[in-house]
Amino acid sequence: MIIDKLNRRMYKTKSFLCVGLDTDHKLIPKRFRKLKHPVFAFNKWIIDQTHQYVIAYKPNIAFYEAASPKGLHQLTRTVSYIRKHYPDIVTICDAKRADIGNSSERYATAIFDKIGFDAVTLNPYLGYDSLEPFLSRKDKACIILCKTSNPGSKDFQDLLVGLIPLWKVVAKTVVEKWNTNNNCMMVVGATYPAELKAVRKIAGDMPFLVPGVGKQGGSIEDVFNNGLTAKKRGVIINSSRGIIYADDPKKEAQLVASSCKAFM
Amino acid sequence: MIIDKLNRRMYKTKSFLCVGLDTDHKLIPKRFRKLKHPVFAFNKWIIDQTHQYVIAYKPNIAFYEAASPKGLHQLTRTVSYIRKHYPDIVTICDAKRADIGNSSERYATAIFDKIGFDAVTLNPYLGYDSLEPFLSRKDKACIILCKTSNPGSKDFQDLLVGLIPLWKVVAKTVVEKWNTNNNCMMVVGATYPAELKAVRKIAGDMPFLVPGVGKQGGSIEDVFNNGLTAKKRGVIINSSRGIIYADDPKKEAQLVASSCKAFM
Repeated sequence: MIIDKLNRRMYKTKSFLCVGLDTDHKLIPKRFRKLKHPVFAFNKWIIDQTHQYVIAYKPNIAFYEAASPKGLHQLTRTVSYIRKHYPDIVTICDAKRADIGNSSERYATAIFDKIGFDAVTLNPYLGYDSLEPFLSRKDKACIILCKTSNPGSKDFQDLLVGLIPLWKVVAKTVVEKWNTNNNCMMVVGATYPAELKAVRKIAGDMPFLVPGVGKQGGSIEDVFNNGLTAKKRGVIINSSRGIIYADDPKKEAQLVASSCKAFM
Repeated sequence: MIIDKLNRRMYKTKSFLCVGLDTDHKLIPKRFRKLKHPVFAFNKWIIDQTHQYVIAYKPNIAFYEAASPKGLHQLTRTVSYIRKHYPDIVTICDAKRADIGNSSERYATAIFDKIGFDAVTLNPYLGYDSLEPFLSRKDKACIILCKTSNPGSKDFQDLLVGLIPLWKVVAKTVVEKWNTNNNCMMVVGATYPAELKAVRKIAGDMPFLVPGVGKQGGSIEDVFNNGLTAKKRGVIINSSRGIIYADDPKKEAQLVASSCKAFM
């Protein structure tokens, strides 16, 4: 359901852009800091300027927890605002959660039901039962970390299990065993184009959330050349600081969106 | 520093008991539900009854996020109460966090500085740089998931990397590379005694947080026979529902604590 929503939005906008709303109270322009809900006001401003170029918004919940309890309230307002005014844009909670079933159920309640997100990022290390409370939600989407964009992803994700790296085992497990509700996606970093290509081979039409473009060193061209599906879809390209702290966020979002069109 | 605090408390109480404050508003006795801060009032009652048998309290943050923003406020009150009234008891945030550095920094702020926890549980899948903002905090403790107590821990943690399972690679990495500030501990489930024994061989005197006793099927005897250090210390035995929802939580905590003494 959420993946259909995402695909419809990709077709409509001809964009793959996801804006990361990693909003830090200290980094937003002064004019917002005087307001009652500064982070929400800033997010609303970013959303109103960029929505036409965007398929998804992805707040990283760490930024809101660091300003809790007010921070989480402003996150909930942000998600409600998107749902009300731009209901065809997907909302992704970047939370990288995983816990034993009892606790994961509470996280699913918090993220899907209380705040109202469409999708969440999840960590596979604890295995199937730890993610089951998310995976069983047919009305939501689960984006499982496969090969992350950071340098430390080499520490364990690249270890060889028999002849194949762990990230590939995770990709096969998600595709072959965990996706029974057709609600799975995966995180694959733009900083590792060869891995992106290999995961695409395994995953068919499954969309990938692709962080790591820009400051982290990944290129949009590499993402398109290695991550697109046969139908030239299937990548969600995330940009956070590059857009929200740009002098002109609208122009920046438009630039990324138009660079997408060339590859469609 | 926090590990010293923990060891002092073990010697003083002759107990290894950690009480998991996984408090669900719907499951607490009716008399608390009428109060202004029901979850905090319940936690306070549990803490006041059990503190003399306890080395650590471990709220799982998922339970508080599911009731956010009020839930997180009650969690902060709970941690402040422990710090004020029982300052030699260690507070552990069961959060299983991991993210890229920028976001992990925010989680460290939220958990260590805003709420005020002594320690946090962390997920190793994203590698060193994802946990560096926690590991660099000499004044706090980092408890890294190694072999978790749930059945799904078999899915990836047991995979063989060369000749050794992934959980063993994680244990060696934590001990040999990540513990430069002597502030690391590990999570090893009571449900896997052979693995507990093997991790103890690798980890010397490092304390382990051991969940999975009771309902999940792990036995205290197995934990002592396999997890203790040469000095007969080094395990933090967690019990959550078995104590907080017992008819007489004090008696239950006393029972676990006295069963510890036999092994010291």
